[in-house]
Order: sequence, then structure tokens, then C-alpha cells
Amino acid sequence: MRKELPACPVETTLMLISDRWKVLIIRDLLEGTKRFGELKKSVGNISQKVLTANLRSMEEDGLLTRKVFPEVPPRVEYTLTETGHSLRPILDSMTAWGTAYQENHESA
Amino acid sequence: MRKELPACPVETTLMLISDRWKVLIIRDLLEGTKRFGELKKSVGNISQKVLTANLRSMEEDGLLTRKVFPEVPPRVEYTLTETGHSLRPILDSMTAWGTAYQENHESA
Repeated sequence: MRKELPACPVETTLMLISDRWKVLIIRDLLEGTKRFGELKKSVGNISQKVLTANLRSMEEDGLLTRKVFPEVPPRVEYTLTETGHSLRPILDSMTAWGTAYQENHESA
Repeated sequence: MRKELPACPVETTLMLISDRWKVLIIRDLLEGTKRFGELKKSVGNISQKVLTANLRSMEEDGLLTRKVFPEVPPRVEYTLTETGHSLRPILDSMTAWGTAYQENHESA
């Protein structure tokens, strides 16, 4: 959890969510807790290895928590932390901007 | 300008600005028109080749315009388009979130 952060807040945010997969993971976890398999399906086109690596890094950065239920096979659930949830305004502005861009693109 | 856009608006936005350099270029051009050399300095740590490639792709996506003044040596200026400027709310929410994250990080 203890890494050097860039001085610029925009760079700090980028450092934490610049990976496109991370933004899509956040988009999907904003709907609520998800199991590994559900996330893999909703994020789409991501390999198990890459999804695992991203989830681990987001857990280290305090964006989500991982809970393992001792079942057979073990159930693993991911939930956004408060910090993770606080990314919602960024996702909301990305949604609004992307929608407007798509509309312009179609009418161009 | 005519590429297939993803159905999800968040993915569309990511497709256009997921590269961290692009976000930093937008951050710096939101202040106003800049020459190539000024951008290279303000973005920081970016090679000439990578900066050129990003600027060209952003021009194709309609985020900025490039103007060449016939001087010796030629002066080249980059300015955000209206679409580029409309990314400001995303940058603003990234600034707000990054600032809060930095403060938590320091007090952790």
C-alpha cells in the first residue's frame, strides 16, 4: 500500500486506473459484489491470468477487497471498498462523454 | 475518423483516452494552445516519437487540431477541439479523486 505517488493528482488517478481493464472491473463492481467467474464474463475478453493480476493490484491499492469462502470449490468474491466506490463520478463522466461522442460519431 | 466504437460508452471513452500520455496531453492543452516543444516539456518524460504518435491519433479522433505556421523553423501548434475540451469534467473528477487519494495515502 505504501508506494510513492506522483505529485499531480491526475497522474495519481492514472497510475491507479490507467489500465483499461481496471476501469471495466470498477464499472462492473459498481453494480455490487461479484464472483471471479462473473467478473471474467462481464469484463469480457480478459484472460484469467490478466484478470487475477489486475484484481491483486487493485486490492493492494485499496480499491477492492477479496473474500474467500471455504467451500468446495472455494468461492471468491470481490467487492469495491469505499475508495473504490468513490471512483463513481469518474465513471459517470466517462459514460456521459462516451455517449455524446458515440452520438456525434454516428451522425458524422 | 470512421472507426467502430464499442457499444459501452465507458469503453468508447477508454478507447480514446486510455493511454496515460493522452490524458496528460489533454490536461496540458486544457490550459490553452501549446507548441510541440512546450507540450513535450509539460507532459514530461515522453519521447518525441511517442508524443508525435499520440498527437496524430488524437487529431484523427477529433480531440485536437494541429496548425503549422510557415516559419523557419516551422512552428506547430496544438489546440483542443470542442470535443477535446468537453473532456474537462473527466479530468476534473480525476483531479478531485486523486487529491483525496493522496491525502488518505499520506495520513495512512
